[in-house]
This record gives sequence, structure tokens and C-alpha cells, in this order.
Amino acid sequence: MQVSIIVIGDELLIGQVTDTNSGDIARRLAPCGWKVNDVQVVADDAEAILDSIDRAFSKSDVVLTTGGLGPTKDDITKGTLCRYFGGELREDPEVLANVRHVVEARGLKLNDLTAAQAIVPTSCQVIQNQVGTAPLMWFEHDGKVLVSMPGVPFETRHMFDAEVLPRLLERFHSDTAIAHRTLIVTGYSESALAEKIAEWEDSLPAYAHLAYLPKPGIIRLRLDGIHTDGEFINAELDRLHRELMAQLTPANILAAEDLTPAEILIRELRMRKLTAATAESCTGGNIAHSITAIAGASDVFCGSVVSYSNDVKSNVLGVSETDLARYGAVSIPVVEQMVSGAIRTIGTQCAMATSGIAGPTGGSPEKPVGTVCVAVSACGRTRSATYHFPGNRDRVIRRATDTAIINLIYLLREL
Amino acid sequence: MQVSIIVIGDELLIGQVTDTNSGDIARRLAPCGWKVNDVQVVADDAEAILDSIDRAFSKSDVVLTTGGLGPTKDDITKGTLCRYFGGELREDPEVLANVRHVVEARGLKLNDLTAAQAIVPTSCQVIQNQVGTAPLMWFEHDGKVLVSMPGVPFETRHMFDAEVLPRLLERFHSDTAIAHRTLIVTGYSESALAEKIAEWEDSLPAYAHLAYLPKPGIIRLRLDGIHTDGEFINAELDRLHRELMAQLTPANILAAEDLTPAEILIRELRMRKLTAATAESCTGGNIAHSITAIAGASDVFCGSVVSYSNDVKSNVLGVSETDLARYGAVSIPVVEQMVSGAIRTIGTQCAMATSGIAGPTGGSPEKPVGTVCVAVSACGRTRSATYHFPGNRDRVIRRATDTAIINLIYLLREL
Repeated sequence: MQVSIIVIGDELLIGQVTDTNSGDIARRLAPCGWKVNDVQVVADDAEAILDSIDRAFSKSDVVLTTGGLGPTKDDITKGTLCRYFGGELREDPEVLANVRHVVEARGLKLNDLTAAQAIVPTSCQVIQNQVGTAPLMWFEHDGKVLVSMPGVPFETRHMFDAEVLPRLLERFHSDTAIAHRTLIVTGYSESALAEKIAEWEDSLPAYAHLAYLPKPGIIRLRLDGIHTDGEFINAELDRLHRELMAQLTPANILAAEDLTPAEILIRELRMRKLTAATAESCTGGNIAHSITAIAGASDVFCGSVVSYSNDVKSNVLGVSETDLARYGAVSIPVVEQMVSGAIRTIGTQCAMATSGIAGPTGGSPEKPVGTVCVAVSACGRTRSATYHFPGNRDRVIRRATDTAIINLIYLLREL
Repeated sequence: MQVSIIVIGDELLIGQVTDTNSGDIARRLAPCGWKVNDVQVVADDAEAILDSIDRAFSKSDVVLTTGGLGPTKDDITKGTLCRYFGGELREDPEVLANVRHVVEARGLKLNDLTAAQAIVPTSCQVIQNQVGTAPLMWFEHDGKVLVSMPGVPFETRHMFDAEVLPRLLERFHSDTAIAHRTLIVTGYSESALAEKIAEWEDSLPAYAHLAYLPKPGIIRLRLDGIHTDGEFINAELDRLHRELMAQLTPANILAAEDLTPAEILIRELRMRKLTAATAESCTGGNIAHSITAIAGASDVFCGSVVSYSNDVKSNVLGVSETDLARYGAVSIPVVEQMVSGAIRTIGTQCAMATSGIAGPTGGSPEKPVGTVCVAVSACGRTRSATYHFPGNRDRVIRRATDTAIINLIYLLREL
């Protein structure tokens, strides 16, 4: 089934908000073999919305819109949909009851503006929003479907999973199976990796395709397959996935699934019944945050000391003040003492530590912005190195975070 | 000037990567009075790209594309642009020299695939990529301009600021001034706020418009103005911005600029020459990360203890084991001891502490998922409360993070 997504909202076109809804929807459609043809981001403007609907229907059988449904005056989607699909705007008592229920569950009182959410086009079938006040609207048009969903990511995600996707799958019968396999690779540049597997890639059958998704320090290889026979394409992708892995050395394969480094680390620690901690200077808590963002992290992650000042490095983590003065905070001796300090203070078998210059200021000719010392330790073995990461503050922090986690994963696998 | 953005890449349409480039570009164009009409996200597919260019030129004078330029086989943008604008693909010796320079600066060797980046359409003017290997391409067509940029966000951002925007501003003369003002408000639901300022909003002149950008716990109000006279519209928005503030009580105005809570906190601490720390359980380092993500945070932020396990709460932060057993980790007595423990351990005047149940598991009838205790302390004054945040793990963590930071901001303002 072919899908087009329309994301509605001025805030997206001035860059005040980033659209994550279209990606969330696409990720959920892919395993069903449904394909997103395009995403259009348009303004809160009737002509732009009408035009985008025409275009979407010219390409796809299913059009999903998000946003433009808030109770305030800048949202004009509902009236525009009514113009496109006909009917008139009318208050729906069932929607009103649902809006009242949602508002009261939040301990608030229903006011006139929120009550206006219950005014919907008579041409649609309403899907009650279980987690917000904007109702979802299902329109049918020449055998095609448009579903209008709210723009708040949490509401979109919840309602898409709970109501929209099941109804779409029931309404349409998929004729094409699409499948994906992912391999997470480290230690190659994109082009070096492409050269290494060029011959194998050239021999791929027509129904399979390899895509490179590089991010700094990590390349995700995604095998896509498309076929009328779902069982066949899944078996074929499994075979090609194994072939692809055999082209690479195991020390470069971080994972054979689409997982983040933090997810892989948690799995490796859990498998070995080990616990980990972090001592973070330049990453400022981002390693701990990346790990604890994942449900169940508490099984293997005990805590962290963010030692942004030198006092915290020495007083809490026990880094030698002499070494701090002699080598500087961004040095191998200091980061190695940080990692052992984390193990001692938090009480774990494993730890990661970072100390570096994230920028934009603080660099020197010997230690320019982007210089980061990373140490990892597991069951008595410690490994450390100094890196020079390119890019701005955010990029240096993210790169240092990934590097610490990846280094601990590979160290654990050597135990 | 009217702009359309085309974002190219299969990875975006299966949700494996989130587009942040279009927002970055839009944010940089807005202060110049340039307007982004729409964003199209399209596949690595020649017909889809050609179609999106036609559509973009039908609406806008400037078309900016990102992505689809990698050295690997899934990227077909260059050939498609050559088809659209004419000319042929040919190796450009200057581009080759630049690609070699960029690759060697990374300590790598130039291979054939990367060298192929130097093959460009003869119909474009090349802008050398200073931070990556994919050259930027500037095409002219019936007085309109298309600029093709790489998709790696860091490269796009750098090259857009350094080369593309200055060249666009030189090439075109803007005829419309667009201006924005923002107000960050807390303590209202979207509809309650809208009701409160309805009368004022109705009286807005035709050239001004108010948009509501709610996120959990915070509403950003954005005043947009559009006029031929830039000075006039800026003066008018300043006036309306002051009027809007006067409608609200100061205790609900977090900021009169478009800043994140962490940016506001850093400013408030710096103004008062105070330092802060965090003691984080359920937020797992995210408060520290949000603060240290901002350049210059080290002036006012000293560090954090992420006490994910109870042992760390008592051993490092000095929380009473008796109270942990009696009240549970998610309790006011524990979170208040955490906040004073952070001040003592890290050595600051201010601190924030969180302890809660982020989910999806770990809830109980008395303390369901989403229950979070937050304490903040500044110069001897401590304030704490228990919250019940809706939503999934990620949402609970982000909401608890914002709440801790916002509570400390308001406490500082009372000192």
C-alpha cells in the first residue's frame, strides 16, 4: 500500500519544531509492507493544505495528516478538510463527551475553546482521541482514505498504534511485501566500506538493495527487499544479511540489528550479569542519559558522577590533584583515574569516563576543541585513548558518548 | 523571498533518520525575512526528485535540496539534477583537489568511490564543501535558483551559513520583511491561556498573528509579523510583545525570548553568580546533559550525581537508609535529602533533584508510572513537590527534567 504523509504547521516551516511524527509513522508502516512515498510539510494555510491533499492522492491510496488541530486560532485544518470532502462543521455530542472526559482526567475544567474541539465535519468518521482533546478524522474519497491526526507526537504515536494502523490494515489488503535488515558497522569510512563490499553489492538480486546510513563513527547498512511473496523476501534477506556479515570482520560489527549503541551495551552487560557506571566531564551526563533513556536500564546501570569541575573530579572521584595540575583535566592519567573512581564510588564492575574540550571555547594549540580522552574499564581491564572529533559542541558530545559506549561493548566482548 | 526545501533520501521515508536540516535552514532564513513555503521529503528516485523540483519551482524562487549526495550507490541525485538542468556529468579537477584535501585532513586515503564525488554536472556552479566530500551545486533556471547541499546535518549547517546564505542574499533582494517574537509561558493549559488573552488576540492588526506552540508544561507563544517595511514591523512586534506580557502575571512568564529552560537557568545563575548541581534518579543524567549541552555551562554548572541505584543514593549522596526503606526512593524526604546531598557533594549553592518512576514498569497503585518527586534548592531555600506526568518513559523523563529546571528558575527569582 502506498502512503503519503502531510505534516501541517507554520511552526515547522520556521524551524521552531522538528517533525518526528512522519518518521514514527513510517517506522510502524514498514513492517506491514506499506511504503511512504513522500512527506509534505505545509503551512497552516487552506490553499497549501488543499494542494498537498490533491498531490498526495495523486500518488497514494492512503494519506495521513498530522497537526493543525489545536484549539487555538492558528489551526485551520478542520475547516479545510470540510471544504475538500464536503459536509459541514457540526458539534458531535460523543466527541464532546470524550473531550470532557480527557480534560477532567487531567484535573482541568472544560472551557469553550477546548469544547470547540468537538466541532467536526459531518463528512468524516471520528476516531476518539484517548490521550488528547483533538479528535481524529477518517475521510473516504474515491476508494482512498485520508486520516487526520493530532500533531502532538505522544498523541500521534499512541493513537496511530491503537486505532489508525489496525483500521488501515483491515480496510486495505497489502499486495507488496517490503522487508528490511540492518547491520551496524564501526571502524570504516563510508567509502572504504563501500569499496570493500562492492563486488558483493553488485551481485545483489533485483529485489534487494543496500543503503548506507552513515553517522559519525558508525555506519548503518540497511538491506531493503521488495517482492509480492512476503515469506520469500524475508528468507532471502536473512540469507543476504548473513552473506553481508561474512564480508566483514566481527571486530567491526557492532550489531546485526537496528539498535542504538546504548541498547547494545545494555544487552551485553545483562548477558554477562555485570553493572556499569559513568564518570563524565565533557559529555556532561549524556552517556548516563543515553543509557537510562532505555527501559530496564536499571538492571545494569547504577549511576554516574558528572564531574564538570576539577573539584568534583578530585573530591568525588578521587583523581589526584597533582595529576590534574601536571597533565591537565583532558589527559589519559586523569580519565583513567576517573574511570576507576566511578567503579569505586558507584560500586560496579564496569565504567566509562570522558574528559575533553567540547567547545566552542577552551581549546589550545596542544589540545584543540574536539580533543576528548575516553577510558573504559570492565572487570579489571582498562582501555583508554585520545580522540580528535570534528564539528561543533553538540557533535563532539554525541561522538564522545557513542565512542565511550562502543569501546565498552568491544571490551566486554573480549573478556 | 519564497523558498521551497526538498529533502532527499529513502532513509527518511522509512523513519530511520529524522530530518533536522529543513528546520535548521528555516531558522536561519527567518531573520532575513525569507519564507519557507513547504518542505518535501522524497525518495532516492529520479522521477520523485524531478517531480518535486517542478513543484518547488512552481511555488518558490529558491529551491534548496539536502541529501542524496553520498559516495555510495543509493544516491542518484547528481544524475537527476543533470537531467533537469542539462549539461553532462564530468570530473572537475578543483573539486577533486578539494575532496582529496578534506579526506587527507581526516588522515584517510582517497579511494575511487570518494574521488567520484568530483564528478559534477557541467550546468552547475560548484561551491566547495569545506567540511565534507560532497560538493554543493548551484543551478540557475529562468531567474530561479536551486542549490543542492549534502545531507549530513553538520555539513549542511556549516556550508549553509558559510556560503549558501550569503550568496543567496547577494543574488536576491528581499521585498517582504518577516519578524517573530516569542514568549515562554508556564502554568496554563493551551486553551486556558487562549481564553485569557482572547480579547487582546482578536484586536491584533492584520499584519500580526499569534501562534501557540504547546509542549508539556510549557507554551511558547510566537508573534509573527509580515510587512513591506522591516523597521515598522519590528517596532510593532516589540510593542505587541510588551502588550502580551502585560496580559499575564510575571510568575507565569518563563522568558520573553525563544530560549530553552536550560538556557534561561544558566542566565539566571550567571546573573546571580551562583553555581548549581543535580542529583538525578529517574531523569538519569538528562538534566545535567540539557544544561551542559549549552556552551559556557561550566561557568555555573559544577556536576551531578546520577543515583540510579539506592546504594548510590545513600553512599554518595548521604540519603538516610532508614528513610529509603520507610518512604521509598520516590518520596519527598528522599528527594529533599538528594538535593542537599548534591549541594554538599558537588559543592554548589543550588541544586535540583529528581526521583520517580519513568516506566514502563515499576509502578504501583500508590505510586503509578509517571510519579516523580522533584526538589530544588537555592541558597538555603528548598522547595519540593510530587508530580504525576502522563505519557511514556521518554516523555516522563523530559517532563521531569523541564520541571526541575523551571522550578529552580522561579525559586532563584524569588531570592
